[in-house]
Amino acid sequence: MTEPVSTALPRDRWFVAAYCREIGHELFSRTVCGESILFWRTRSGEVTAMADRCVHRRFPLSQAPTRLVDDRVVCGYHGFTYGADGRCVAVPGQTRVPRTARLARYPVVEQDSFVWVWIGDPGRADVTTIPRATWLNDPQWTVVSGMEPLRARFGLLVDNLLDLSHETYLHGGYIGTPEVAATPITTEVDDDAGVVRVSRRMADAECPPFYSRSTGLSGRISRWQDIEYFPPCLYTLHSRIAPLGSVPHPDGSDPDAFHVEVVYAITPETATTTHDFWAVARDFARDDQEVSEFLAEQNRTVVLQDVAALDVLEQVVATDPPGSQELSINIDTGGLAARRMLAAMTAPAGAATEVGAR
Amino acid sequence: MTEPVSTALPRDRWFVAAYCREIGHELFSRTVCGESILFWRTRSGEVTAMADRCVHRRFPLSQAPTRLVDDRVVCGYHGFTYGADGRCVAVPGQTRVPRTARLARYPVVEQDSFVWVWIGDPGRADVTTIPRATWLNDPQWTVVSGMEPLRARFGLLVDNLLDLSHETYLHGGYIGTPEVAATPITTEVDDDAGVVRVSRRMADAECPPFYSRSTGLSGRISRWQDIEYFPPCLYTLHSRIAPLGSVPHPDGSDPDAFHVEVVYAITPETATTTHDFWAVARDFARDDQEVSEFLAEQNRTVVLQDVAALDVLEQVVATDPPGSQELSINIDTGGLAARRMLAAMTAPAGAATEVGAR
Amino acid sequence: MTEPVSTALPRDRWFVAAYCREIGHELFSRTVCGESILFWRTRSGEVTAMADRCVHRRFPLSQAPTRLVDDRVVCGYHGFTYGADGRCVAVPGQTRVPRTARLARYPVVEQDSFVWVWIGDPGRADVTTIPRATWLNDPQWTVVSGMEPLRARFGLLVDNLLDLSHETYLHGGYIGTPEVAATPITTEVDDDAGVVRVSRRMADAECPPFYSRSTGLSGRISRWQDIEYFPPCLYTLHSRIAPLGSVPHPDGSDPDAFHVEVVYAITPETATTTHDFWAVARDFARDDQEVSEFLAEQNRTVVLQDVAALDVLEQVVATDPPGSQELSINIDTGGLAARRMLAAMTAPAGAATEVGAR
Repeated sequence: MTEPVSTALPRDRWFVAAYCREIGHELFSRTVCGESILFWRTRSGEVTAMADRCVHRRFPLSQAPTRLVDDRVVCGYHGFTYGADGRCVAVPGQTRVPRTARLARYPVVEQDSFVWVWIGDPGRADVTTIPRATWLNDPQWTVVSGMEPLRARFGLLVDNLLDLSHETYLHGGYIGTPEVAATPITTEVDDDAGVVRVSRRMADAECPPFYSRSTGLSGRISRWQDIEYFPPCLYTLHSRIAPLGSVPHPDGSDPDAFHVEVVYAITPETATTTHDFWAVARDFARDDQEVSEFLAEQNRTVVLQDVAALDVLEQVVATDPPGSQELSINIDTGGLAARRMLAAMTAPAGAATEVGAR
Repeated sequence: MTEPVSTALPRDRWFVAAYCREIGHELFSRTVCGESILFWRTRSGEVTAMADRCVHRRFPLSQAPTRLVDDRVVCGYHGFTYGADGRCVAVPGQTRVPRTARLARYPVVEQDSFVWVWIGDPGRADVTTIPRATWLNDPQWTVVSGMEPLRARFGLLVDNLLDLSHETYLHGGYIGTPEVAATPITTEVDDDAGVVRVSRRMADAECPPFYSRSTGLSGRISRWQDIEYFPPCLYTLHSRIAPLGSVPHPDGSDPDAFHVEVVYAITPETATTTHDFWAVARDFARDDQEVSEFLAEQNRTVVLQDVAALDVLEQVVATDPPGSQELSINIDTGGLAARRMLAAMTAPAGAATEVGAR
Repeated sequence: MTEPVSTALPRDRWFVAAYCREIGHELFSRTVCGESILFWRTRSGEVTAMADRCVHRRFPLSQAPTRLVDDRVVCGYHGFTYGADGRCVAVPGQTRVPRTARLARYPVVEQDSFVWVWIGDPGRADVTTIPRATWLNDPQWTVVSGMEPLRARFGLLVDNLLDLSHETYLHGGYIGTPEVAATPITTEVDDDAGVVRVSRRMADAECPPFYSRSTGLSGRISRWQDIEYFPPCLYTLHSRIAPLGSVPHPDGSDPDAFHVEVVYAITPETATTTHDFWAVARDFARDDQEVSEFLAEQNRTVVLQDVAALDVLEQVVATDPPGSQELSINIDTGGLAARRMLAAMTAPAGAATEVGAR
């Protein structure tokens, strides 16, 4: 028996704040881990990220009538004006600008179609530690994607995605078939690399509509689900659909199979709300707009089924009496490993040091 | 001067959870005293009551796509499956079902048209202590009934129903006349039997529309209101309407009078919300559908007048500064006795024992 | 760096509760500093103010079906009846009225078109300390006025009104021009008189639509803004608009100028909501209904711009992590002085005495 997932938020980590396509030369605000962040793209094309609070009276700079004048943000309340580096360059009623008047900036990187932002101590931000989802920005793959707001703590979505047995019940008729729940999983936890792997290999399975209509396969199939979760934010599902008996060639090529990379970026908005970014990349029917539309609509529907269930579950977990317990079984191995890794990321630094000093 | 009614909830007591007619072979959920309970009727016709939370990840079993397959509940999230006795009989990804996987069951009884459920230690549930409202399931009586949700602590409704002087003001034009507020009451408290009795005998009173249109009486009447409240849940009002001067015969028969049994089941949903079950049974015009419709519509209107007033009062009591006081007078004797009996039911067991040991 | 404005409320002070025109021979309720107050005008024309809570079960007396019968309030729940002096004169079911049954009354004064009410110890209420806004009830002036509800702590509105540099940004196209933000202010704080004065004299300024369309002036103007704020509630802005170079005559007359008295009464409803009373009095175009309509519509629009900004700001201040800071500059001198005076009014009496005793 274990406690339900906590609402604690990791710090000193990279999170996906937006798709690159969302940020233009307009003020854009998104809250990540409880921090309200202002994003915009400079005239030269760089994304900038700074605190969405005027230093003067904390007016949100994303709020009209605040506006962008060239590469400067002019606060809509009293006109405090900031450059792309966050420095205040003008204030009302006086020519001297206080030396300390500057907005906190966030380390920010565009990679694999996402805008990644660092939450925590900027001095610890290392761009090489951002996990990759290269398919999302690779001409060999065709991608559909979106984001749905979730009114639940992000750990509930991590739980959900690491245990795909729920496809059979919550997503029956879309991506679930009896074999998903029935097939045992293998789980691998690599604490050093910071990754949880969960695999389910179905040698002889029904083909759900999501795959039959997109690949054209009918009848029984071989279906592999290989999850890699890089806590806290990036989740990838390597999905392989193939005719019965087909396996990849010894050289690694796999011409008879259809590959789908399902990517989720799980970004806490607040302690109890989450940005649920989802993307589906495929290596087949790449120019078929109908398949793109079908997969986009299907995956969005599946995500909204998760959202409906987890919104309800958040209310349950938030309002049930303290001490309520959960019972875990084999399918939860990956999810429980993820919880442990997330707990370590949210433990106060002092606590971790103390343990290390013993 | 006294404190406003508390939000504490009794435990180890029977409560009305539903009308029998509400429970069929479909999943049905109702929260009683803060506990979310799943009800359904087996193929053999028995009502079963169990915790509305899957043991795995606490998903509410009343929530779609959870469904009933024969006499088994299949959780809509990961497919944990439960029998009518609450035992888990199947889980995903493995054949072994953990021994501890079972849902807490609630003692449940169908009686007098109500589904009664025991909240507290199941070992202490004694079905013989459930108070009776036999008129509701007796061919000699015709009944109309309903339930209205109240966004107020249940003690406010107890207060309301034990002091009917409010009929004159809040329900004028329906059931109130000047005599209700003007006539003194007599109150009897039987702590051993667990009942509060409040009587008001109006020898010469105006006949309100509720009774004139249903009985056909016009002009002045004799009107008796004899309340019996069995804390915490069952309230009955024995109402006798008769021509002036008419009294029951020495043998107990009462052929000139019209009798109405007004029954309320006052069930806390949470500490600050209540299920307000109401029923009106009569021994006259028993096959007159028009009278049934009239009394149902009138009583529902009266209940909604209470609901409107008590919803407002809940906000007042919940948000006024602590230390706010009430002033009680004679009409409050029954209500104050009820509060004392309810307080004893909510006192921690240790506290009661300690007092007894002295 | 300073903390954002507090939610503490002054006590032992006069507040504007309503316009005189709002109170007739009907029950009227308004919450001031968290106290729900019942107002009505007696048959002889006097405004009376008492607690909006029946002494019996705390039912709000402003709530239907409570009604006024001649000069008595009859509670709509159980019929407790009160005179204009707050004394209970009738209760249900008994002829004796408890001696302590009376509603707390509030000192109340009608002055300058406002109903002023004293919040705090009634024994300390001194009507001579109510600040004046005589223009609002003077036949030499024409007035338009209104009130908008603000979902923000009252200190945010005090801040807003004491720093008019925001007109340039938040109210551009209405009352703001570049000169307002650009022109330095002079600030005077008179702690003994309890007034903060902020002046901005613009010798050569653009004429904003608010003034050009109402006065008929076009081109550049001389514009003076002289604020007097009498904490906690009354704010007056003496606005002088004149042709370039025009100054008042040595004898005090000022025939070439247009004068507008902008009055705000800033009344806390609760710790985080505010009644934003606004009035605009003018000494020109006094019978011109079109000018009246124009100024009413314009000022209401300006107030609603403030409301929109401050409603957002309240959410920011209420939900941002504790320890969030503000940075103040010259334009904030008046606002910071006001905060200090308000803090002194909310300090516990003991604390103040201790300081005085040293």
